[in-house]
Formats: sequence, C-alpha cells, structure tokens
Amino acid sequence: MQEASLRHRPESEDCFVIDKTHLRLRFHTAKDDVKKVIVHYLDSYYDLKTAQTKEMEKIGSGQVADYYMTTLELPLHRCQYTFEVVGQDGSHLIYGDRGIRKYNDSNLYDYGQFFKVPYFHEIDMAKTPAWVKETVWYQIFPERFNNGDKSNDPVGTKPWNPSDHPGREDYYGGDLQGVLDKLDYLQKLGINGLYFCPIFKASSNHKYDTIDYLEIDPDFGDKTLFKKLVDEAHKRGMHVMLDAVFNHLGDQSRQWQDVVQNGRNSKYFNWFHINRLPVMPFTDPTKGEQLPPYDTFAFEKHMPKLNTANEDVQKYLLNIATYWVKEFHIDAWRLDVANEVDHHFWKKFHVELMNINPEFYIVGEVWHSSQPWLNGDEFTGVMNYPYTQQIEDHFLTDKISAQMLIQVLFDQLMLYRDCVNSGMLNMLDSHDTARLLTLADKNYDKALNALAFELVQPGSPSIYYGTEMAMTGGNDPDCRKPMDWTKEGDSYWQKVHDLIKFRRKHSTVLSQSDIKFAIKDELIVIKHGEITAYFNTSNHEVEITKKCSVSNGYRNGVLSPNGYILCE
Amino acid sequence: MQEASLRHRPESEDCFVIDKTHLRLRFHTAKDDVKKVIVHYLDSYYDLKTAQTKEMEKIGSGQVADYYMTTLELPLHRCQYTFEVVGQDGSHLIYGDRGIRKYNDSNLYDYGQFFKVPYFHEIDMAKTPAWVKETVWYQIFPERFNNGDKSNDPVGTKPWNPSDHPGREDYYGGDLQGVLDKLDYLQKLGINGLYFCPIFKASSNHKYDTIDYLEIDPDFGDKTLFKKLVDEAHKRGMHVMLDAVFNHLGDQSRQWQDVVQNGRNSKYFNWFHINRLPVMPFTDPTKGEQLPPYDTFAFEKHMPKLNTANEDVQKYLLNIATYWVKEFHIDAWRLDVANEVDHHFWKKFHVELMNINPEFYIVGEVWHSSQPWLNGDEFTGVMNYPYTQQIEDHFLTDKISAQMLIQVLFDQLMLYRDCVNSGMLNMLDSHDTARLLTLADKNYDKALNALAFELVQPGSPSIYYGTEMAMTGGNDPDCRKPMDWTKEGDSYWQKVHDLIKFRRKHSTVLSQSDIKFAIKDELIVIKHGEITAYFNTSNHEVEITKKCSVSNGYRNGVLSPNGYILCE
Repeated sequence: MQEASLRHRPESEDCFVIDKTHLRLRFHTAKDDVKKVIVHYLDSYYDLKTAQTKEMEKIGSGQVADYYMTTLELPLHRCQYTFEVVGQDGSHLIYGDRGIRKYNDSNLYDYGQFFKVPYFHEIDMAKTPAWVKETVWYQIFPERFNNGDKSNDPVGTKPWNPSDHPGREDYYGGDLQGVLDKLDYLQKLGINGLYFCPIFKASSNHKYDTIDYLEIDPDFGDKTLFKKLVDEAHKRGMHVMLDAVFNHLGDQSRQWQDVVQNGRNSKYFNWFHINRLPVMPFTDPTKGEQLPPYDTFAFEKHMPKLNTANEDVQKYLLNIATYWVKEFHIDAWRLDVANEVDHHFWKKFHVELMNINPEFYIVGEVWHSSQPWLNGDEFTGVMNYPYTQQIEDHFLTDKISAQMLIQVLFDQLMLYRDCVNSGMLNMLDSHDTARLLTLADKNYDKALNALAFELVQPGSPSIYYGTEMAMTGGNDPDCRKPMDWTKEGDSYWQKVHDLIKFRRKHSTVLSQSDIKFAIKDELIVIKHGEITAYFNTSNHEVEITKKCSVSNGYRNGVLSPNGYILCE
Repeated sequence: MQEASLRHRPESEDCFVIDKTHLRLRFHTAKDDVKKVIVHYLDSYYDLKTAQTKEMEKIGSGQVADYYMTTLELPLHRCQYTFEVVGQDGSHLIYGDRGIRKYNDSNLYDYGQFFKVPYFHEIDMAKTPAWVKETVWYQIFPERFNNGDKSNDPVGTKPWNPSDHPGREDYYGGDLQGVLDKLDYLQKLGINGLYFCPIFKASSNHKYDTIDYLEIDPDFGDKTLFKKLVDEAHKRGMHVMLDAVFNHLGDQSRQWQDVVQNGRNSKYFNWFHINRLPVMPFTDPTKGEQLPPYDTFAFEKHMPKLNTANEDVQKYLLNIATYWVKEFHIDAWRLDVANEVDHHFWKKFHVELMNINPEFYIVGEVWHSSQPWLNGDEFTGVMNYPYTQQIEDHFLTDKISAQMLIQVLFDQLMLYRDCVNSGMLNMLDSHDTARLLTLADKNYDKALNALAFELVQPGSPSIYYGTEMAMTGGNDPDCRKPMDWTKEGDSYWQKVHDLIKFRRKHSTVLSQSDIKFAIKDELIVIKHGEITAYFNTSNHEVEITKKCSVSNGYRNGVLSPNGYILCE
C-alpha cells in the first residue's frame, strides 16, 4: 500500500459536522490501491472497546487519489474515530491520530490513535442558505446592460451599439432604470438572482475605483431608484447581490487625497500600506522602476490598498457592509479581490452580516483554491473559477481530455465541505474574462454544451449578461459590450432559456455535491440525484437512445458533437 | 513516483508568513521517493516567465513521509508559487494548485497551476511571544504544594504526609501563601513560569467545578494575597498562568441551581445544553441508562457544559477572562477542556486578550492533533500530550523503538507552523496523568533521561510540582500527593536543577522547531542550534567521547543505559 498517500485532516473538508448529531468523514488513498476503509467510532468518553464500525463508500476518483466517505450518527454530539485500511496488496493498517500502525486488535485501541471531534457545535458549522441553492444568477455590468434613463447619461455617451468594441474609457449610458425596465425580461429568461457589478460612486465606467460607498453613482441613478429596484426584484422572487470593493479605495477618494496632500500628518495615513513618502510619483517594478511607494491592487496606482487591520478602516467598511443590508435589504455581497484582504477582517464581516440576516450569502472573488476562506466563518462560497476553467479547458479549448476533466472536477469538489460546494458561484465567463461564445470560437453548440454542463454542476450558477443573446467579446474591456437586445427569443436564446428552466426545476438536487462522473461510449455521463445527463465532447456522432426533456444536437438516437441530453 | 503522496496545503502549516516579506513553505513526499523539489515563485502580478526558482531542503522524515522546506523573500508582500518535483525514478512533474501535470516549460506557466498567498498580513500571522520561548514552567496543584496558612485549612484537613495516597475528597491545606513562601525555592530550582491549577471558588479540592470565577477560593486565600503573589513572581522574572475552566460550570453554581429549580423558566436555561426536562436525575449511558438530560464534561453530572454560542455566556466568560489580566496582570491562561468549546468563542477570547496584552500566552488543553486551534487566532499552543506521550512510549515504557520515536516526533512537528511549535506546552506528566517516576517504574535514570530529552525539545517545557523531589504517584488522584519537601538539594534534585539551568541558558535556540533527530551507534542524537545531545535508550553501555556540560550516566567515554549527554 502507498502509506504516504493515506490522508485525513480532522475538522476540515475531510471531517465536518452536518447537524447536531451527524458527522461526515472523507478519507483519501492512492488510486486503486486500497480494498476497503473502515471507520471505528464512538463517543469521546465511551470505553474504546465499544467502538462501532462502518465501511466507508468509495465516492469517486481524482487525478491520483480515490475518495472514501461516510456519515456517522453520534447522539451525544461528540466523536472519536480511527481508520482501518485494507490494501489491494493485503496489507492491513490503522491510520490514526498519531500515525500509522499495523492492524491488530490491541493496537486499534491504543489511546491516541483516535481522531476527535470534541463537540458538534452548530455555531461552527459551515452553512449555505437554501435559497442560494435554488438560484440562477444573472451578472449585470450596469453601464452596459440597458439605458433606461437618458437624463443621467455621462458626457460623451456613445450610441448603444452591441457591435462596438468598447474602449477603457467609453460610456454607453446603462443604468439602474434600465435594469428595472428589464426585470420582466429577466423573469421570462428564468433568472432569480441579480448580481450587480459595482454601483457605488466611482470615477470609471466599471466603478471598481470607489469614491463613496454610501452613494449610488449618479450615472446609474440614486438610492430611491435602487430601493425600488430591490423591492421589485424581491416581488419577483429574485435575490440581489452587490459588489463590494473593500480591498482598495479609488485614488480620487477623500481619504487617499488627504494622504497625498498631508503625508504622514494625514489622519488617513494608517488606512493604507505606505512604503515610503512621498507617495507620488508611483513606481512600477514591472516597468523596471523601483518598488512602489504604496501597496495597490496589482500595480494599479489608482487603487491604493486599504489597511484592513486598522480599526478605523474596519469600522468604516463594516458600516458600509451593513448599511446596504439594513436599509435596502440586499441579500448577498460579492467581494472584489477578497483574497487579498485579511482573514481577521472577513471574520468580523461575517459576524456582522449574520447578525442582521443568517440567510445572507457572501461570495469572495478568489481565483485559486480557497479552503482558508470557506470554513464557515468567512465566506459562503467563492467565484468558482478553478472549477469552471477546468470545464472550459475541456469543452471549449480542448486542453484536457474528458477523462482528465472528470478527475480534476472531483478533486476540486473534494477541496470543500459539501455545503460549501453548494454555495459556490459558478460562472463560465464574467466581466473579467473573455465571453463564453468567444472562448468557444463562436461555435454555438460548443458554448451551449459547456453551459448545459455548468448548469448541472453543484453550486449556484451565474450567467453573464448577454450570454443568452449569443454575445461575443474578448478579454476586458471587449467582454463589456452594450447588450444586444435584438436576439431575444431566437433559437439560441430559447436553448439557454430551457437550460435555465431545467436547472431551476431541479435546483435542490443539482446544487448538492453528491455528483457522479463517468465516461461511457465517449460521452461524459453525469448522475446527480434523479438527473442523468450526457455530453458529447468528441468530434463525431454517438449513438444513444434516451428519453430526454432538454437536449441539443440529439435526433433519432444520435447525439452530434457538442450535443447534450438532460434526462429527468 | 508515488504521486498521491505529494502534498501541500496553502495557508496552513505548509505555507505561512513569517514576517511582512518572508514566506515559509513545506512540501510532503513519500519517503525516499523524490530526488528534488524546486519551488518556482514570484509576485502575484509579475509575468509568470519571470518566476524565480529555489530548491527546497529536505529537513527530515516521518513514518512514511519526507518533508521539504524553504523560505522565500517577497518584497511586495504577495506570492504565487508552484512545485517542480523530480522523482527517484526520473519522473518529472509539476504539482500545482489545479493538480499534477508532467513537467514541461509551457505547462509550468499555465495559469492556475500557481498556488497563492494573496497578501502577507501580519494580523493573520500566528505568533508566539518571545518570553514564552524562554520559560520553564512549574505546574502547581495548589491544594498539595505547600500549606503556608493554617488558618484557612478546610475542616478535616489531613496531616501533610507525602507518602499518603490521597483520596478524591481529601484536603491537605495547600494554599497561595504556601506558594508565596516558596518563590525563592522555585527561583533556586531555575523556574521562571508558574502554572496554577484552578484557584477560583469551587466545591472540590481540585477546583475544576467552579462556583465563582471572580473569587479566589477561600481555602487558598484571597485577592490581596493573590495580587501579592503575582507581583512577587513578576519581581523574580516569573510569568504567571492560571487555569480557566470555561467548558463547564460546577453544579453548585447559582446559574445551574437556577435551572435545576426553574427549568425552562430559568433565565439561565439557554446557558447550557439541555436535552430534556427535568434535568434530575442524571442518567449515564455508560451505565446502561438512557442519554443524559443535559450535556456535561464527560459523564460528570457535577459539570454541566456551558453553551458558549449564547451571547450572555460569552459576555460572562470574557469578562472573567479579561478581569484577571487587567486587574492582576496574569500573563497566560491555560484553558481546561478547550477542545470542547466552540471556535467562535475562542476567536473572540483571543481578540479580547490580545487587545489587552499582545504578549499574552494562551494554551489549550487538547490531547489530540490540534491544527484547528493553532492558526494564530485562537491559541498560542496546546498541552502537547501527543508529542510527550510519544517520548514516554519510547523512553519510559518501550512501546516504540528509537527509530519510530524520531519519526513520529518529526511528523508531530510538521503538523504545526514553526512558531506554534515554539509555543507548545510540553510536559511529561501533570495532575491528569501518572507521575514521571512512576511511569519510569521508579528507575531514576530513566526518568531523568526522559526529562533531559523533553528539555531540549521545541516548545515551552513544564515540570509538574514534585518532579524534582522524585515524587511518585499513579493516575489521578494519586499523582496529587502533598509535596515532599525533604528531598531538596539531593542528587536527583541537583540533576533536575542542572537540566533546567541548561534549558534556560539555551532556551532561545531550544524552543525553536528546527531540530534534527538521528540514531547513531544506538544513541538518539539531537542537533538543535548550537546544542548536540545524546541519549542512551538501549539496554547496554555505549562508547562515546564528548566534552559535555550536563550529563547523567557518563563516565570515561562510556554512556550507561538511560544516560544522556548535553553538549553546548
């Protein structure tokens, strides 16, 4: 047996309380190396000889590992447990809290070989609100979705032309009235969650360089209008998520301008990470210059990084975070560059938000593996780029095989607790990436196939505005074209609509993380609760006979390349 | 290569910031499986092609794993990194954030293969105060250390007889005046930390069933006396640690009695975990009875468990925790049954204590692996039973070989960040275990050998009262005999004294976790900074010629069984 491959980490994604009397355990082994894994478990204060046993289920395989799982019931809210492992080569081990021992009855009961979950605390459990699991999000870049009020158009607003390739400084006049006017449309599309890119007062068209977090940007509207928008969305059963840019301020903010002018004498000096004075001119080491005078987002001199260890900054940001929830009843925050803000701050943030609304949803922007933020006391989920980019690497750009895809997806799922997987925000594209159809090289079927695949994954899916209109666009800013309103109802639109409808109908099941992947006759097969789904990512037709409710490229028992069948 | 054995967890004991510009990484492989591990690293916003490389150092081996380590400098406080691994079998891989790939230049730079430490936040760093690393603790069970004031002796106090085998309900009259009278003695022994078992008002001789956390138990003295004791200790350069029993209350407390009398109408009903009413009589499933009416410590009906998720309970306990620090300037809390209290509470506790004194030391009682509490926002360290019991399993009871010992100790060290290892409270015995000499079957040399070994380990060592007097005692309550004051200055005492003195002299180095273990000529050899130490745990003499400053059983180039040499 590959003993160094045996792995289990207490109180983590490998070991988590799911309710006051149930505990879920996972165990990792090398692939095809182990015959069975048995957990021995009991209350922490029972005689070890009374331990119960339960064989773990092999729930899937990743690139190099097999994963075992079981759920234990402990009526006294405490557990000690250890693993008995039988190898394919006949070796027989105990894997416990103080290492590995050859299996024999006396060794099994050696004190110290048992891991512990000392007490099942509900307050420490990671949780995902039920509504999140039932939501299909629609991401709106407000400046480009719909112009509902010409009177607030910025000077120099360009004509609304979906074929334009927007420049970095261009304005097209999109606003909140435009969103309000289209709520019925979004409802028709099947959407029940609105995810807004920033809407607070800022200097740019994207509004990531905040000037005032307590004001709606006048290009977009005002608070009265925003309140109406939230209320109208809620009336339609839609939840509302705003984008909080707490990693950095805009350099036009009064706080940063005060530092620029007063240096060390500014009362905001400690609000930032200042390496030397004066703070101007900015220097950028990627241009061969010296280290920057202050820390920023990336090397963006307009975005000085906030010092969230400073209590005044904490109070300032927490006031903002709670204001929009208490006064406007927003349901979720998406947190920009969330990974670069300190954990202490996010823990306080979590406490404050949960105190107002225990069903609040918190999504961090993190592009890499995210365990440190997903232990139940910071974020509900993150933007799940590591997951969805693997989908794209197979479905759209063919960088990895189908076999590799289903392995790495399972590895990704095993990084997090089940309820965390249900709370992940899954999107194939966004304001920060090229558009789906462009990534698919304008192959409509390919794009739809990836979208169908995304929509049966665990988590909370998000669709970038215009995806349903088959919009194209390269990397930022090209992915931020004005919405193409001419395509509503055409056949591509209808396919997207049907996929959303299917997801919504089965969202409770599909959001869960107990998904099974397989490859059969070159099709990727997903079994997920009552759903079975087939995806043809090969370059030829595959024969298959299924009764299906939603499909593309399926006819007379043949599934075309890039076709899919979703069966319920 | 055993690919499933490759392991690295971002933002954990495998990846931690050590100061604003330095990051330490560890990497795990199967034993003797890998030729080299190279880390590729750079700022998160630099072009990937500018990544620097550094070969990691193999720092030691555990039971089944080899451990690699390196420290990186990142002037911009951000890092992305990935691992290149070359196997003994010639295989050549990238181990990155999205899985394992065959090594080639283009793969290496695939976005997504890089792990990230998004920003080096000092506020999130685990920290161990310098003074903790320089401390040798002395654990006092106040009822049994010294009777300095006959006037407060409880009714029925027994004569001070160190040969007695104390019963569960016996009193011997030890008190705080007794400790105060012996501070000079403790200073002579070389001690610079006093760790007190509970001293607050309670019902029993051990005081773990608290009645009032804001009063000194009258058997022991009063607040004036305690204040004097702390001040006198501080004058001698000694730090003071108290024992906080926050997992449960005593059943004689007014809060629990109110529940007993008023049931659901008690305002303290939600202070506890009540499963059914009435709460009396208690039922114990280990006696074949039904599940208990309320959750307790173990099945101890006198110790009802506190509901630390309740905000009133939190306020109550945090007030106590801060009161003794603010008013009496204690330096540390040892937290009883700390593992069974929720993490949310300990995080608040940590914030409150650090706000008063950033150099405060927090030690949890946890008998098993403790990563969840040791990420810098709960405890500084834990009582390191998993480590010291491995020492006993070899040195005292010969359950494991020397080779096994040095492997499992290294595995234990690799569970935690380096600074956490420096903050671990290491003790070979305590009020909760049989005494060292009894575990050593009354073999004085064996006991001294284990003690010498403990005192050169990373962490903050603690000596249980009476160890220096060669006291014996089985499990609780036998390990709580009245102190034997007759042995001061005899040869065993002198050996203990010399070991403490050696530890104190080299504490800055010895507390660090960069220890190297080896077996040479049947001796266990430790290299730890400028110190080299040899321990003979075989059953025969071993020839060795060393200039040593502290030793036992060493004469004319021969080290006896159970002998040790500590060389500086």
